[in-house]
Amino acid sequence: MRGARNMEDYGLFLALLGSALLVGFVSVVFSLVWVFSYREGLGWDGGSAEFNWHPVLIVTGFVFIQGIAIIVYRLPWTWKCSKLLMKFIHAGLNTIAMILAIVSMVAVFDYHNARRIPNMYSLHSWIGLTAVILYSLQLFLGFAIFLLPFAPVPLRAALMPIHVYSGLLIFVTVIASALMGITEKLLFALNSTVYSTSPPEGIFVNSLGLLIVIFGALILWMASRPQWKRPPEENAKVQRPNGGAPEGMEAESTMTDGSNADKSDVGFNSEAARKRHFKLDEAGQRSTM
Amino acid sequence: MRGARNMEDYGLFLALLGSALLVGFVSVVFSLVWVFSYREGLGWDGGSAEFNWHPVLIVTGFVFIQGIAIIVYRLPWTWKCSKLLMKFIHAGLNTIAMILAIVSMVAVFDYHNARRIPNMYSLHSWIGLTAVILYSLQLFLGFAIFLLPFAPVPLRAALMPIHVYSGLLIFVTVIASALMGITEKLLFALNSTVYSTSPPEGIFVNSLGLLIVIFGALILWMASRPQWKRPPEENAKVQRPNGGAPEGMEAESTMTDGSNADKSDVGFNSEAARKRHFKLDEAGQRSTM
Repeated sequence: MRGARNMEDYGLFLALLGSALLVGFVSVVFSLVWVFSYREGLGWDGGSAEFNWHPVLIVTGFVFIQGIAIIVYRLPWTWKCSKLLMKFIHAGLNTIAMILAIVSMVAVFDYHNARRIPNMYSLHSWIGLTAVILYSLQLFLGFAIFLLPFAPVPLRAALMPIHVYSGLLIFVTVIASALMGITEKLLFALNSTVYSTSPPEGIFVNSLGLLIVIFGALILWMASRPQWKRPPEENAKVQRPNGGAPEGMEAESTMTDGSNADKSDVGFNSEAARKRHFKLDEAGQRSTM
Repeated sequence: MRGARNMEDYGLFLALLGSALLVGFVSVVFSLVWVFSYREGLGWDGGSAEFNWHPVLIVTGFVFIQGIAIIVYRLPWTWKCSKLLMKFIHAGLNTIAMILAIVSMVAVFDYHNARRIPNMYSLHSWIGLTAVILYSLQLFLGFAIFLLPFAPVPLRAALMPIHVYSGLLIFVTVIASALMGITEKLLFALNSTVYSTSPPEGIFVNSLGLLIVIFGALILWMASRPQWKRPPEENAKVQRPNGGAPEGMEAESTMTDGSNADKSDVGFNSEAARKRHFKLDEAGQRSTM
């Protein structure tokens, strides 16, 4: 019923989700085809095959898995699951993405060191490393503030919009960094003379770059539509006076500034009240985006 | 008074705006210092000096001016100006940005053709040209739907969230494309051996890339805070039954789905009503982000 309320365009959501999963999956396949068909495959020998883990793990973890982690609260069939379970899934997917991103960086540093190539000179490396550091910080702070039960509700309410903004900003920064990485690698591997003749590898890897941009655009659309946000727990208000921070309260926590009194005296059994409640839900939710 | 209502954190907005203007201005200065101190300066001779218009005009028009155009509705001292005037400023700044972006592309094609360098082979060129085409389309559709008085209000209401999303998506795509362009140009001009020794030009132009990312992050934060949105015209509702589409209605148009009845019977003279009205304003506005 709650699903039906917020999901009048459920079919559109499913179509976009299916598209995102397809484009993300095809991106991962493209990264594998790139390193196996055009490059030296995968290995851990200090050579090019070790470097090749970098694009594969970045596309798999830092783009695809991070993108899914961002929208996991928005899957309507999870709204009957507890918020705590969804937080664990959100944090777990982001942890997997972070580990893959770190391993992918180790592969590059290892490859550079074995070949005596300097590290950290390019804009790609500056922005990419910054993204990994900010992502780790975001994950740590998210865990400490929103998953552990210690942070007071007003602090959660104040930080949730920043958490959402930072998450989306890091996601687009990662994609921008991946596009720079593709540009660099094609210029190193093919050199500019060959790349400028549009060889099959150039066309193929450019297409991978476009797929990543389309994946990012789909995730950002799904993540920023108010009507697709997980509805707040209806019993959260009852729990708040205890002073604790039970799971399921963050959506509520973003609307603690004066609207609670309006909302808590609204019944749920009349159509007008339902509509008004929905509007107030929106008011609370939009401050997170 | 309206300003005081929505602008409790007015000082923070001014600080962010000042930072964005400073970082954007310094980015433009950096692009000029790059081409004059490290490269061949500016000219229109089919040589490198012609190419150099490309980074200068992209940073000036497609990054800085576009960024300002995005947040121009949010400057609180413009809220007393008519919405129509602000639309002309928004459209005018975007038109300037589009012209500069197109001239900057002409410079590159002209340079490539004079040097017999192929066009449109790199991921940077694919994504950059796509961004220019989508930006032109966005400007044309924005003009036709939101500035000209012909589009019906429900159409404007339905398209405004897409207009806002597309605008921000194009903006971040432009920044990603600029970062790829910096990567390409440094690898072409310095070649990878010199770039990898972190020469002054490499450090300097990487810093330009970081400045552009910071500028983008500031603009995105300012553009996505609900409390900094231009308040809807208070008399817009009265005009709606005429069936026309007077200027100043788009903010209202995004909330035509059931909240009007709630809102129009709310007075503006009691504190509780003011708060509730503010919440409902938010409900309408957030669907644009």
